[in-house]
Amino acid sequence: MTTTLQTAIGDLEPGSVAVLGLPWDESSSFVRGAAAAPPHIRQALHSPASNLACEAGVDLATEHRFRDLGDLELDMAPEAFDFITETVDRVLSRKARLLALGGDHSVTYPIVRAYARHFPRLNLLHFDAHPDLYDEFEGSRLSHACPFARIMEEGLVQRLVQVGIRTMNPHQQAQAERFGVEVVSMRDLIPEHDFDFDGPVYLSFDLDALDPAFAPGVAHREAGGLSTRECLRLIGRLRVPLVGADIVELNPSRDLHDLTAVVAAKLVKELSSRMLDL
Amino acid sequence: MTTTLQTAIGDLEPGSVAVLGLPWDESSSFVRGAAAAPPHIRQALHSPASNLACEAGVDLATEHRFRDLGDLELDMAPEAFDFITETVDRVLSRKARLLALGGDHSVTYPIVRAYARHFPRLNLLHFDAHPDLYDEFEGSRLSHACPFARIMEEGLVQRLVQVGIRTMNPHQQAQAERFGVEVVSMRDLIPEHDFDFDGPVYLSFDLDALDPAFAPGVAHREAGGLSTRECLRLIGRLRVPLVGADIVELNPSRDLHDLTAVVAAKLVKELSSRMLDL
Amino acid sequence: MTTTLQTAIGDLEPGSVAVLGLPWDESSSFVRGAAAAPPHIRQALHSPASNLACEAGVDLATEHRFRDLGDLELDMAPEAFDFITETVDRVLSRKARLLALGGDHSVTYPIVRAYARHFPRLNLLHFDAHPDLYDEFEGSRLSHACPFARIMEEGLVQRLVQVGIRTMNPHQQAQAERFGVEVVSMRDLIPEHDFDFDGPVYLSFDLDALDPAFAPGVAHREAGGLSTRECLRLIGRLRVPLVGADIVELNPSRDLHDLTAVVAAKLVKELSSRMLDL
Amino acid sequence: MTTTLQTAIGDLEPGSVAVLGLPWDESSSFVRGAAAAPPHIRQALHSPASNLACEAGVDLATEHRFRDLGDLELDMAPEAFDFITETVDRVLSRKARLLALGGDHSVTYPIVRAYARHFPRLNLLHFDAHPDLYDEFEGSRLSHACPFARIMEEGLVQRLVQVGIRTMNPHQQAQAERFGVEVVSMRDLIPEHDFDFDGPVYLSFDLDALDPAFAPGVAHREAGGLSTRECLRLIGRLRVPLVGADIVELNPSRDLHDLTAVVAAKLVKELSSRMLDL
Amino acid sequence: MTTTLQTAIGDLEPGSVAVLGLPWDESSSFVRGAAAAPPHIRQALHSPASNLACEAGVDLATEHRFRDLGDLELDMAPEAFDFITETVDRVLSRKARLLALGGDHSVTYPIVRAYARHFPRLNLLHFDAHPDLYDEFEGSRLSHACPFARIMEEGLVQRLVQVGIRTMNPHQQAQAERFGVEVVSMRDLIPEHDFDFDGPVYLSFDLDALDPAFAPGVAHREAGGLSTRECLRLIGRLRVPLVGADIVELNPSRDLHDLTAVVAAKLVKELSSRMLDL
Amino acid sequence: MTTTLQTAIGDLEPGSVAVLGLPWDESSSFVRGAAAAPPHIRQALHSPASNLACEAGVDLATEHRFRDLGDLELDMAPEAFDFITETVDRVLSRKARLLALGGDHSVTYPIVRAYARHFPRLNLLHFDAHPDLYDEFEGSRLSHACPFARIMEEGLVQRLVQVGIRTMNPHQQAQAERFGVEVVSMRDLIPEHDFDFDGPVYLSFDLDALDPAFAPGVAHREAGGLSTRECLRLIGRLRVPLVGADIVELNPSRDLHDLTAVVAAKLVKELSSRMLDL
Repeated sequence: MTTTLQTAIGDLEPGSVAVLGLPWDESSSFVRGAAAAPPHIRQALHSPASNLACEAGVDLATEHRFRDLGDLELDMAPEAFDFITETVDRVLSRKARLLALGGDHSVTYPIVRAYARHFPRLNLLHFDAHPDLYDEFEGSRLSHACPFARIMEEGLVQRLVQVGIRTMNPHQQAQAERFGVEVVSMRDLIPEHDFDFDGPVYLSFDLDALDPAFAPGVAHREAGGLSTRECLRLIGRLRVPLVGADIVELNPSRDLHDLTAVVAAKLVKELSSRMLDL
Repeated sequence: MTTTLQTAIGDLEPGSVAVLGLPWDESSSFVRGAAAAPPHIRQALHSPASNLACEAGVDLATEHRFRDLGDLELDMAPEAFDFITETVDRVLSRKARLLALGGDHSVTYPIVRAYARHFPRLNLLHFDAHPDLYDEFEGSRLSHACPFARIMEEGLVQRLVQVGIRTMNPHQQAQAERFGVEVVSMRDLIPEHDFDFDGPVYLSFDLDALDPAFAPGVAHREAGGLSTRECLRLIGRLRVPLVGADIVELNPSRDLHDLTAVVAAKLVKELSSRMLDL
Repeated sequence: MTTTLQTAIGDLEPGSVAVLGLPWDESSSFVRGAAAAPPHIRQALHSPASNLACEAGVDLATEHRFRDLGDLELDMAPEAFDFITETVDRVLSRKARLLALGGDHSVTYPIVRAYARHFPRLNLLHFDAHPDLYDEFEGSRLSHACPFARIMEEGLVQRLVQVGIRTMNPHQQAQAERFGVEVVSMRDLIPEHDFDFDGPVYLSFDLDALDPAFAPGVAHREAGGLSTRECLRLIGRLRVPLVGADIVELNPSRDLHDLTAVVAAKLVKELSSRMLDL
Repeated sequence: MTTTLQTAIGDLEPGSVAVLGLPWDESSSFVRGAAAAPPHIRQALHSPASNLACEAGVDLATEHRFRDLGDLELDMAPEAFDFITETVDRVLSRKARLLALGGDHSVTYPIVRAYARHFPRLNLLHFDAHPDLYDEFEGSRLSHACPFARIMEEGLVQRLVQVGIRTMNPHQQAQAERFGVEVVSMRDLIPEHDFDFDGPVYLSFDLDALDPAFAPGVAHREAGGLSTRECLRLIGRLRVPLVGADIVELNPSRDLHDLTAVVAAKLVKELSSRMLDL
Repeated sequence: MTTTLQTAIGDLEPGSVAVLGLPWDESSSFVRGAAAAPPHIRQALHSPASNLACEAGVDLATEHRFRDLGDLELDMAPEAFDFITETVDRVLSRKARLLALGGDHSVTYPIVRAYARHFPRLNLLHFDAHPDLYDEFEGSRLSHACPFARIMEEGLVQRLVQVGIRTMNPHQQAQAERFGVEVVSMRDLIPEHDFDFDGPVYLSFDLDALDPAFAPGVAHREAGGLSTRECLRLIGRLRVPLVGADIVELNPSRDLHDLTAVVAAKLVKELSSRMLDL
Repeated sequence: MTTTLQTAIGDLEPGSVAVLGLPWDESSSFVRGAAAAPPHIRQALHSPASNLACEAGVDLATEHRFRDLGDLELDMAPEAFDFITETVDRVLSRKARLLALGGDHSVTYPIVRAYARHFPRLNLLHFDAHPDLYDEFEGSRLSHACPFARIMEEGLVQRLVQVGIRTMNPHQQAQAERFGVEVVSMRDLIPEHDFDFDGPVYLSFDLDALDPAFAPGVAHREAGGLSTRECLRLIGRLRVPLVGADIVELNPSRDLHDLTAVVAAKLVKELSSRMLDL
């Protein structure tokens, strides 16, 4: 860990939101590219075409508790995953909240490992087109198709609720049943869906939960997804603290004019605003 | 008809879904290109970026009743249309169900001609931005602007219900009235729309029923259309057997990064799943 | 003013809808380009890929009260703005209704100046992602970020209702309160929203009110916006006369395959149909 | 003609270069859109991404003889063509040189009509993929496929030399022979090609002379064309005065990220620099 | 083989050029999609944006010896390859010349097998970025990375000359030496390169021989390639009969606005013109 | 500096080529985005669509002296620049050669500062559309418009030769004269241009030296540039050791389908091959 990062983490005050880039795509199955996402998201976030005012009224431009820690320098798995866990652990020790920018979805596992140390009864809310519950995929148990299998095996969270799922093969169906995952499929989702969490929530947001019309810049486009507004409304219905989040699977090489980076930047704003609102 | 195709049809067992490509765009009025659609749809369907698991749980990858007959080799109208009718007739004689991949919308007429022989009280459900009821268009009565006029004139179906219509000029309005077409315009469509069919349904899906945000790869973009999910939900509300379908008017040359091919592939999966679910 | 334009205005009969292009982008803050919008909108409107039939049944192709005055030739501010006001005033003196095609949003101020002379109790309905209420922006009080501050300061309208707002910083929040602007934010908007106007309405439509999935061709993309259909439905709920409108902020250089021009053309059709329906 | 334009022309000093936009595409055969070109070219020219320094050392930013007259307001043919001729005549009467921005290629005919009055022994240098020598096209003798037939019939120029031609059907071949057009086809063009003009040259530059790799934003893409640098080098080999020019057939709706507008802006700079260099 | 195809082949007169689509991409290593190429090429060829006049003066629109046989219906390898060989053999038996439209590069092997029966001393001219000389690739000896290894092993041609090569690993280098392939790499190619063939030539044109600026629509983009004009000039320097050709590896899903299809259509025109010119 | 990076540098053996990413764009004047370039270049380099075989025969896949050090973690200027200089100094101390991946062009100055310590008579070869010789730009002397002014002021190199320049305003012209920069403008460049360096060369390659047809993904597109092959040929004419290089100004957000990343990856291969060839 660089001295700069150590200092930045040390400077976090309680209740801060700490943005952290995780430029990692070595666990991707179909096509790489997600490692390039963090600078695209930051560029959209800070573009003069927009501003940092959130819908609930917070202006992140003047909010000193909104901090960007930069990107982690990640070398090789599994060391990379340990480094992620260790770094997130330090952030949480400062009583700050993490907003991680992937990278592919495999990073959620090491993040949640750290969260489990600080939040013994964590609820995991997962937006995605796919359940990512494979026991192993193409020979790897750390693939971006597997993180939620690892998390559930290790009992890192109290509940896992998946929203937006619209392609689930028999193996993943069996895994979901085995682990007691609560799946709210696109087919069954209603706008008035109410989350009944009774404790803190960590949100893992795979951009392919969105319909490809809203988020073309992903590796695995599956039509029939959510609109950006539907996602914001669902998240707005949470009645418990949001203590951490990740936004993953932006693949800039498959994006159209950075449209998906704009969506990710919107999520950064709205999730940060929500996390600051204690 | 090639021996290969004859054999493939002969091998269909009752209750199968038979995918058949119809690379035809000689009846297009504005711009050609729809003839190139079938390989784009198949590529999206079989891409390693996705899988063949359907929302209702069927996995087409292991479903032996899901068959692809390849593309028909079509030469010139009207022989091409007769060849389509004859081929579909053979498929239906095997008690299989057709899922045709256009091509432009003119192919629906010869398909429904075959269906009328096997389903005397067929209901025709038609998703489209346009009614395609022209008596003739630019000198042709077989144009892709005319198929539903031909179908109604010949009394091939019991009812024709059109969904998603959002541009209808006086001539087409008059044709709709003349033929007793039931038009559910976009303006009047509600999410809870209930179809009251009392017998088997054939679904003709023009991709421009979708908003251009979801399906940019069409010849005739008309803003204000359906989302992919809205379509899937409406189709999910059918309470009668779905005995056949076509997905038409994908124009790959006007598509953006094959986004519309991805939507078409999604429809192939979900319509097949619905047709297999007897 | 050219003789041609004078003649065209003189030929307007009462109840006409007069389309007027305003190729102006010198008041844009982030990036120019909106000046190129009018020919792109006209091209989409008259493309053989579509037609001029509106959803309520009017066919503009045969409607002699639907007139296109062409583009104003605009030189430099503030003379350009005075010229806009003067031209619109002439149109309104003919008892016609204006449908202006921007250009950037700064043109709404000089248009509404003219409307205020003819409609003393005008209601202003404003679709936008941003409130555009800055007192001044980057040194200009005529910036496209300021028109509604000017309009409210001068008391040109009775009420200002803003729909689709989803980024509002403290300064603009203060301005909204100061001027009594009624803000219906995206966060709070419901499909059944009912406008309670009791007199004539002028509609100013910034295309970035739409989600970037529907309207990518704008300078300031803000995710989480309206769909085209949601906009059409909201406008369809107006129960008072629509006496004028503008469609602004199309930036063709940022568009994808003219998709946003197609949306703008759809709005031209539906707003014209609404204005003709007296 | 507006007073503004009259004044601007009146202010031209001898030796000036006057840029004039001609937003005209009603003479296009395949697809319209060229009318939207002038604002795209101006945007590329004045973008902060570039500057106005020319390769020969002139900086147009500080060159007071470089003037932009704005766009002509064009209504209907043939009046539009007469208005073009009249306006260009006024510019030439000021001893200024015209740099016209199309619009489609049909505008060259009315421009050259004006030039013929001032330059009795004019040479016409024409860059294009096509000879545009049709006697008539789709019923029009003023089509963008015909301007050079009109020019030659009326004897408006001394010589016509065409460069970059790579598709010429028998009719156009016959026309070329009939009129004594000197065709330097792509097939025969060598980098060292030397123009042997003995008097002033007017250059008509159709952007489809360039290979579609360099200029995708044209209606009629024909592979195998010139590179931008090859064009600049050929023009640089002219040893006689360049007294006027047009840059035509940019179709922004078919462009990719305004790449062709960037090429057109480069030509504006280099042709202006050449015309100023007396 | 369909009766239609049999008849079409039977109707070929000596000296004809027969276009034949081969929609095949099951031998592609990286990404599929080339099977969709033939309709994209035909669409560009017959688009009203262009015409069928060739640079040497032939107008294919009125040339009755220019025939399109349509696409072969290809099922599975190796039967597909045998069917290609058999069909090409029939074409050659009519003393016609083949112009095949791929499909991926694997189709060249079965084509040349047929040619070898009719042209015992054939020269094979191969434009490509890659030598495609792998002994096997990813487990297949019929991969699109292998056709020229198969051709040389079986001694089907007298000489193999490769042009445009710019990435050759040690294995392929060894194969080239083993088979006596004459490689004219991009690094060494000069515009004046002279082919010294002493007998008939078959030309296999992989579109990735072109620089990605000219042909983005290919699976394997390798920068530093030929321009379209350089290719046309090199082919124009052939001084022996061109008796057949293929144009392969267009991948429409990776194309930009069909730009590569436009290049392929240009090659169809110019190669046909050359083959007709006996 | 992380321990990982220290170790990686410590492991470099003499004669290695060390790739180093510099994700920096805070010195960009017009638009940011170049910081996202390194992962896009690496993705193109390692894509299964290509391979690591270089044109001179070296296969980087099996060349152990080809090393990737990853990206530097850069915080704020001027500390970032000192960190770059220090890191490069360490690489050079290992007798290795640097291949830096920008980032914007401002990074060349701190790199060359390190080189000057090790190569007292260094020649700097600079490919660019712009001379980047501003004394200061928009208030910054470290802008990406200024690096070569800094380098020349401090006498860090013996000679500076600039190739591809095609826009040079009077200020930069004066700077070039003041510093004795040798400018080979596009206007004057001939394919046979011969570099007369008599000692080691460092190459700084701004991708906008290429024509936008070849490299659209740059902030400052200036038409009329080099082709990729022309660049490779010019570099191939160097007759002295190439001891270091940078490839800068790739802006992925402005790229088309990563085409420019493919060019950058090609340059990585060919420059590495050249640097390994001692």
